[in-house]
Amino acid sequence: MVVTVVIPVAGTHSASHDAWRECVGTGRLSLALRRDYLESLALVQKEIGFRYIRGHGLLHDDVGIYRDYEWEGEIHVLYNFTYIDRIFDAFLDLGLKPFVEIGFMPEALASSTETVFWWKGNVTPPKDYGRWRDLIHAVVTHFVERYGLQEVLTWPFEIWNEPNLSNFWKDADQAEYFKLYRETVGAIKAIDPGFQVGGPAICGGSDHWMADFLRFCDEESVPVDFLSRHAYSSGPRGSIPFAAYQEIAPPESLLRDFATGREYAGRSAYPNLPVHITEFNSSYTSINPVHDTAFNAAYLAKVLSQGGDVAESFSYWTFCDVFEEENIPTTLFHGGFGLLTHQQVKKPTYHLYEFFAHLTGELLHRDDNLHVVRRDDGSVALLAWNYAYDDEVHDGGAPASRTVTVSLPVGDANVFVKRRTVNEQVGNSWTVWQQLGRPRFPTREQIAVIKECSAPAVSTAVREPTGGRVELELTLSRNEITLVELTPIRDESPSYPGLDDRKVARSGA
Amino acid sequence: MVVTVVIPVAGTHSASHDAWRECVGTGRLSLALRRDYLESLALVQKEIGFRYIRGHGLLHDDVGIYRDYEWEGEIHVLYNFTYIDRIFDAFLDLGLKPFVEIGFMPEALASSTETVFWWKGNVTPPKDYGRWRDLIHAVVTHFVERYGLQEVLTWPFEIWNEPNLSNFWKDADQAEYFKLYRETVGAIKAIDPGFQVGGPAICGGSDHWMADFLRFCDEESVPVDFLSRHAYSSGPRGSIPFAAYQEIAPPESLLRDFATGREYAGRSAYPNLPVHITEFNSSYTSINPVHDTAFNAAYLAKVLSQGGDVAESFSYWTFCDVFEEENIPTTLFHGGFGLLTHQQVKKPTYHLYEFFAHLTGELLHRDDNLHVVRRDDGSVALLAWNYAYDDEVHDGGAPASRTVTVSLPVGDANVFVKRRTVNEQVGNSWTVWQQLGRPRFPTREQIAVIKECSAPAVSTAVREPTGGRVELELTLSRNEITLVELTPIRDESPSYPGLDDRKVARSGA
Amino acid sequence: MVVTVVIPVAGTHSASHDAWRECVGTGRLSLALRRDYLESLALVQKEIGFRYIRGHGLLHDDVGIYRDYEWEGEIHVLYNFTYIDRIFDAFLDLGLKPFVEIGFMPEALASSTETVFWWKGNVTPPKDYGRWRDLIHAVVTHFVERYGLQEVLTWPFEIWNEPNLSNFWKDADQAEYFKLYRETVGAIKAIDPGFQVGGPAICGGSDHWMADFLRFCDEESVPVDFLSRHAYSSGPRGSIPFAAYQEIAPPESLLRDFATGREYAGRSAYPNLPVHITEFNSSYTSINPVHDTAFNAAYLAKVLSQGGDVAESFSYWTFCDVFEEENIPTTLFHGGFGLLTHQQVKKPTYHLYEFFAHLTGELLHRDDNLHVVRRDDGSVALLAWNYAYDDEVHDGGAPASRTVTVSLPVGDANVFVKRRTVNEQVGNSWTVWQQLGRPRFPTREQIAVIKECSAPAVSTAVREPTGGRVELELTLSRNEITLVELTPIRDESPSYPGLDDRKVARSGA
Amino acid sequence: MVVTVVIPVAGTHSASHDAWRECVGTGRLSLALRRDYLESLALVQKEIGFRYIRGHGLLHDDVGIYRDYEWEGEIHVLYNFTYIDRIFDAFLDLGLKPFVEIGFMPEALASSTETVFWWKGNVTPPKDYGRWRDLIHAVVTHFVERYGLQEVLTWPFEIWNEPNLSNFWKDADQAEYFKLYRETVGAIKAIDPGFQVGGPAICGGSDHWMADFLRFCDEESVPVDFLSRHAYSSGPRGSIPFAAYQEIAPPESLLRDFATGREYAGRSAYPNLPVHITEFNSSYTSINPVHDTAFNAAYLAKVLSQGGDVAESFSYWTFCDVFEEENIPTTLFHGGFGLLTHQQVKKPTYHLYEFFAHLTGELLHRDDNLHVVRRDDGSVALLAWNYAYDDEVHDGGAPASRTVTVSLPVGDANVFVKRRTVNEQVGNSWTVWQQLGRPRFPTREQIAVIKECSAPAVSTAVREPTGGRVELELTLSRNEITLVELTPIRDESPSYPGLDDRKVARSGA
Repeated sequence: MVVTVVIPVAGTHSASHDAWRECVGTGRLSLALRRDYLESLALVQKEIGFRYIRGHGLLHDDVGIYRDYEWEGEIHVLYNFTYIDRIFDAFLDLGLKPFVEIGFMPEALASSTETVFWWKGNVTPPKDYGRWRDLIHAVVTHFVERYGLQEVLTWPFEIWNEPNLSNFWKDADQAEYFKLYRETVGAIKAIDPGFQVGGPAICGGSDHWMADFLRFCDEESVPVDFLSRHAYSSGPRGSIPFAAYQEIAPPESLLRDFATGREYAGRSAYPNLPVHITEFNSSYTSINPVHDTAFNAAYLAKVLSQGGDVAESFSYWTFCDVFEEENIPTTLFHGGFGLLTHQQVKKPTYHLYEFFAHLTGELLHRDDNLHVVRRDDGSVALLAWNYAYDDEVHDGGAPASRTVTVSLPVGDANVFVKRRTVNEQVGNSWTVWQQLGRPRFPTREQIAVIKECSAPAVSTAVREPTGGRVELELTLSRNEITLVELTPIRDESPSYPGLDDRKVARSGA
Repeated sequence: MVVTVVIPVAGTHSASHDAWRECVGTGRLSLALRRDYLESLALVQKEIGFRYIRGHGLLHDDVGIYRDYEWEGEIHVLYNFTYIDRIFDAFLDLGLKPFVEIGFMPEALASSTETVFWWKGNVTPPKDYGRWRDLIHAVVTHFVERYGLQEVLTWPFEIWNEPNLSNFWKDADQAEYFKLYRETVGAIKAIDPGFQVGGPAICGGSDHWMADFLRFCDEESVPVDFLSRHAYSSGPRGSIPFAAYQEIAPPESLLRDFATGREYAGRSAYPNLPVHITEFNSSYTSINPVHDTAFNAAYLAKVLSQGGDVAESFSYWTFCDVFEEENIPTTLFHGGFGLLTHQQVKKPTYHLYEFFAHLTGELLHRDDNLHVVRRDDGSVALLAWNYAYDDEVHDGGAPASRTVTVSLPVGDANVFVKRRTVNEQVGNSWTVWQQLGRPRFPTREQIAVIKECSAPAVSTAVREPTGGRVELELTLSRNEITLVELTPIRDESPSYPGLDDRKVARSGA
Repeated sequence: MVVTVVIPVAGTHSASHDAWRECVGTGRLSLALRRDYLESLALVQKEIGFRYIRGHGLLHDDVGIYRDYEWEGEIHVLYNFTYIDRIFDAFLDLGLKPFVEIGFMPEALASSTETVFWWKGNVTPPKDYGRWRDLIHAVVTHFVERYGLQEVLTWPFEIWNEPNLSNFWKDADQAEYFKLYRETVGAIKAIDPGFQVGGPAICGGSDHWMADFLRFCDEESVPVDFLSRHAYSSGPRGSIPFAAYQEIAPPESLLRDFATGREYAGRSAYPNLPVHITEFNSSYTSINPVHDTAFNAAYLAKVLSQGGDVAESFSYWTFCDVFEEENIPTTLFHGGFGLLTHQQVKKPTYHLYEFFAHLTGELLHRDDNLHVVRRDDGSVALLAWNYAYDDEVHDGGAPASRTVTVSLPVGDANVFVKRRTVNEQVGNSWTVWQQLGRPRFPTREQIAVIKECSAPAVSTAVREPTGGRVELELTLSRNEITLVELTPIRDESPSYPGLDDRKVARSGA
Repeated sequence: MVVTVVIPVAGTHSASHDAWRECVGTGRLSLALRRDYLESLALVQKEIGFRYIRGHGLLHDDVGIYRDYEWEGEIHVLYNFTYIDRIFDAFLDLGLKPFVEIGFMPEALASSTETVFWWKGNVTPPKDYGRWRDLIHAVVTHFVERYGLQEVLTWPFEIWNEPNLSNFWKDADQAEYFKLYRETVGAIKAIDPGFQVGGPAICGGSDHWMADFLRFCDEESVPVDFLSRHAYSSGPRGSIPFAAYQEIAPPESLLRDFATGREYAGRSAYPNLPVHITEFNSSYTSINPVHDTAFNAAYLAKVLSQGGDVAESFSYWTFCDVFEEENIPTTLFHGGFGLLTHQQVKKPTYHLYEFFAHLTGELLHRDDNLHVVRRDDGSVALLAWNYAYDDEVHDGGAPASRTVTVSLPVGDANVFVKRRTVNEQVGNSWTVWQQLGRPRFPTREQIAVIKECSAPAVSTAVREPTGGRVELELTLSRNEITLVELTPIRDESPSYPGLDDRKVARSGA
């Protein structure tokens, strides 16, 4: 039985509903020197428009800020902003502010040699906290000189990344992390107490770090301006070359993880502390094909719709496949995190974000499969989704498609109805790439074909309201997301006489 | 009953089949100073790619080449190439050569005051043939100086426009036209006998002018390098403000008109004279909505497919709606000749030309509803069409849709099948504009919506051949044109083990 | 003897000093459809940045707003905004607001046939004031619908152009003009009383019109929001073909004309009425070579420097040579009003405006030959000029060059001194064009040479202040304008040891 | 005494004189993914236009072509062309072909761990020559598939880089190099014997390698298609942090080194073997400020003028400062090899190349300080230069400036003379940067100032020939290069009467 969802004329939900736009993740910062990266980011900003961007590697040696040298038997330090200026200039040009992650350790300042990723980020504490503080001072001071204090005061500073994992922080040593935090926040606040600094940027699995961290700050009187964590919903990864499969928990598990930040804050001395989910996605693996699918889009729709209820921001990891944590991608589609592949092919999840970018204005209704708004120009827009696991389908559990009827308050004028759809067949670049024979290094012609053939399907119609309402029956196929926009029409058909479209194409001798 | 059309492996047709690309028409030349015009032409050239462009007004006073002035009681002449340089530079930049139409008469050189069009082109003979020859000499000499002799030798010069109509040539005076022709060709050939000069550029209704013209040339030993005429298939126009309806004869009538050139030449002293159809369209009226329809596209498909059999070129009148013969257009869609409206909205006939631009290579098959080629990269492409008059439909005569089965020789590899479709519902900017309430002066947002919603519908699939062939069943709705491209696939699925798309989106806790 | 001008540390002058930027003139509005025009305007806006633009022809038939047609024996009216939308969209895209001139008369609404200019602007009163009011209502209402009320409230509406000349207003009939004004202002204010409406837009020679106009408004209770007039400093024109020479009164005569507006207002019932000089230049003739010269730049420098003291705006007539009042220009340099020639060659007066665009911030000093500011970044900038008439020079009256010494308060740090110069030899496209043989229709290579060879000459130096001051000795050649910018240096020479530029290029085996 | 150099009317020199344009060097290939790099290369190609580009790192792991992985206990290999496709696509888009350097060793294929440069290129032989041959086969085959055989046949393949240095090839082991060469050339020629393969790409200091290499090829019947070497003219480097000074031998020493290739070839079994100088510059150090100076430009002028006499190509090392051999540059000007700094600031040597790009056509004269041509359009162009060592100047040895008089055969028409100059004061970005206080990380405003203030100085004049000749007296300041172009003028001054520039700016009341 199809139930009709009746959308109210005015929203009752007071929360902002575009926290999904607040921040997006990126591969390590030095990649932002690349043209492909910047073209991808420009496209994302033009069509979606995030506010902040966060990635690793600010202090890594390929950005090269910290540089020591010997002269007459002594070690001196030179700070080098040649590359970071290019990178942050580029972000700001594209309307993005840095969500600054402080890390990893410059080799010359590292206390040990442990690294993470193919690109070898050093994950050890500084060997000299004095030099570390000097470095932090120099970096933030340079930002202030180049971009102005008022601007930099709007950039959050997050200390390190996932220190609760020994991959990312030597021995996952909590006490050492707290020391690093204290020294770093001290160096930053000495420049201006108005800077926003936070942590502990943990991944899941040891959520108690949040409690420990806030207790530490409180007891040691160390400033903290926000709490941050990550959230992924995938299980352990399988083990084939160049790809990984994982089980994916339902979207609610992501929302639950998002919510833990405010829960821990609420039980701490900082009950109103802002919470940022500084990374999230389904899988935490950069070679899991799930990122390329319509499933991923349909699966995350509820998270984008509701995540803002429980966190100030949640940052999709990452905006494009220019990314090298597990070495250089070996084929166009390779399960990368990106909304875009290399060369700007849009994945289904890109369209999810682009669809959400149309859901501005007043929130009228929200449920597990629907998000409806009235926009400032009077039009109504809705997003519907229908995610389904492969195993459910293969086991006969999930329906191939689902139909929903929605009654929409559109006013008395006829409405122009525009529907855009992405699912496993249409609007799906991964499918087209598979149909083309999975070309590893596509020619330019193939890239053009993939792009042309994977634009969301569009259909249009005119509907006449009854009692100020239009009833839409929407059928969504498996893993479909669909955006419907209903815009009141002002009929400008000519006032001069005689127009009759039936006469246009008449036969004659 | 659906008959299967079996396409041969190799073409037997020796004729070139892209004469449709040879030339395109334009509003008067001074419009080529405008940005909207040039942006439209750039789009046309990028996606279609014509070779020549022809329009009125080279010698009209808004291009301003001929300028006389009085000094000390005498009249002197100054030639002014300020604007024509801008115009021809722009054409050549876009890969187009001028198909030069010599006309209309500069007011200061005119023998009388009769004009044609809102923009008042003077249609009278020169009052002084000496000054006329000087003008022609100056113009062609300037072209040679600016662009080089070798280049200008490739530009045809057509003398005047439709002199068999009194609207376009005072009293439709044939003897005076022949005089004009003789004087003009003389002035041009004096510069270099290699220039190509022709006429009489007549419209239909007095085809005997072609015989008269060739006889005149022969008898008077006046050089002639090509014969030219126009062809439209519409009847008399109705009479409502700002729009006109007309009956349209079947496409074969256009092909018949095209063919008359070679017939007349064949019976003349110049049996192998090249023939150019320097204007054609369904309706000759710039405010007939037929130009905006899918009907127009489906109707002209056969003409584009077969016109090259009977003429060297046939020039669609015109590439865009920047056009002012009946005053300034009063609404976005207004029945203009253009492939594009103002602001580069693509009409269905634009897509017809863009589809034909994909039909390169060897012609395998052609019939009343089908055009099939094998391209240099081994792919096969076909265009199918299904035109239907409104009255047939309204009278129950024509089927709403038609199905054709085609057996295509594609080789042994699987093929990627890409289909693009334009009909009365999809790929149809006129329909979307009607749905939007026929906005006369659309906002930018409306223009964007029209463009987004009127791209041809795309679908993709993979087909496995049997015996080197794929059988396609194509259903075409009313006034549909559809392009199908079948490209052999090279499967690059990974050689490393374990890939299994069924595992990508599995549920977990 | 060279006198040293000592510039004070802080400015005492409270007046804004960028009224020169408030508005610029343009050829008739329909020219704004052209690419050359728009490329020129984009350049002007990027490097200079005006706020408003004013030109003739809003209601002229080549913009085509007013359109009547007959149907069943009656005349109906259709308003057509196809072109004006393109034009105003383009202005607003470039950061310019329209300074709306209401005129000339659509032919179908004209009471008579008198026209002005090559392009035949009808200068007669409406034959039906009811239809006129309807037209005004339709136009302003359309602007409000397309651009929003708040935006359009910032656009001044000036009624007609130079009605005190019979060329521009039939019989220069003052009573009829007042009627037109009353009807028009009434139609506009009926939409919103906040619109700004003014007149009488007179040219010189009958300044009493200003008094008459204000008295009329007062006595008849007709609203008036600003007073407007024009100012040119040239005498009667000579008479050779395609060029005109005129005597040019000193710059003070322009400033005196500017000042008359406030004088008349001060003696009226509207003592604080804003005054706009809606056109000004040296010569009022669009074929006087003076517009192409360094003289024109040096001559107008004082006017730009001081004009803001006596008027809210003064609008240079015009920003580029895309202009057809005396027919189509017959050669690249032809004495047009433009800051730019066709194809964006910068004339000396362009550089004057571009130099003034650097004179932002606090005004420190101003005299007959100097304008000095301190900018927000702490740098000091000065413009100096040295205009000289040809006849003075030929008669031995004016010195070939002039030297001025200026003591500038720059602070204690060393300053980087950058000087840019335009005079009769350098930075002078007219001179280069003459050297090239005055090519009438330059090739692209010649245009490139002219542009490359006519950039202002640049020189740089470092100066060490004494007592916070640097003393500059500036020599200005005949008709030179020179911009000097002095920026405090922060020395970042490396702290690491050993740098020695003397060692860089040493010889070896 | 000033001697007049009399330039002959026709050239007698038969050699091509644009070998300087044949090839240019680049930082390692992976840098070609970067935007700054590509913008720099686009500028270089637009204004200079090289034909080939050569750099290190094709097989380095940051391009990532060779990739092995373990599966079920065995090692498998995957070739990954994701990045190299981007890189070579970009080169070809810019009109550049790769001059392919085969090297360095992928870590997974290396026999040992020795590396060179900050970016750690592995310089050891392959641990398995079978896998090496497979790799070479895969790489060249991929190029052929992507770009076509005919294209790739035009790309030279040079085996390794400077194997005569132990920094670049483990132990500088000649026998091992010859083995590498044999295996590599074998793998390439097996695909098509038409490929061009060569070596030994040595640097100076052990020129006998050329003899050894050719003898090896001859005796072992190993194919060789060209001989290659490098040439730098600097002595040992000093030792201060972040900069190095060196003595520079005269330009003739570079030409002598260039000439050794043909000398060795001439004495070998391959007397006509093409010779490529695949790297050259004054200093071989990427932190020597000499690269930033006018000295470098003036010093290399003779080399560019005459190098083509003794080698097929000589490749300037490198086109821009995006380069990391000694880590990331620490300041805008840092002595990098580039013609351009980061952010596209042009160094004096850039202008040298850009000036040479104007010296097309017939070579009329060449000496130690002069290069004169007649171009296809009839114009004459000359480059003059005046290099001087710092120590000569400081010791009073070299004159501050030098004057030369040149008699040029220009024909009978007046000529337009355009002179562009770069020296230690003008056209010199390094000087402006020093004047600005050597900003290490310039703001965008500073970058703009540097660019604006360092364009070559331009002056123009008209000269009337005597006897078909113009005599130019040119004074060149220290380390000046100056380009003079003399173009015959066609005088188009108006034929209509009355033009008199003396009347333009006359005073009036």
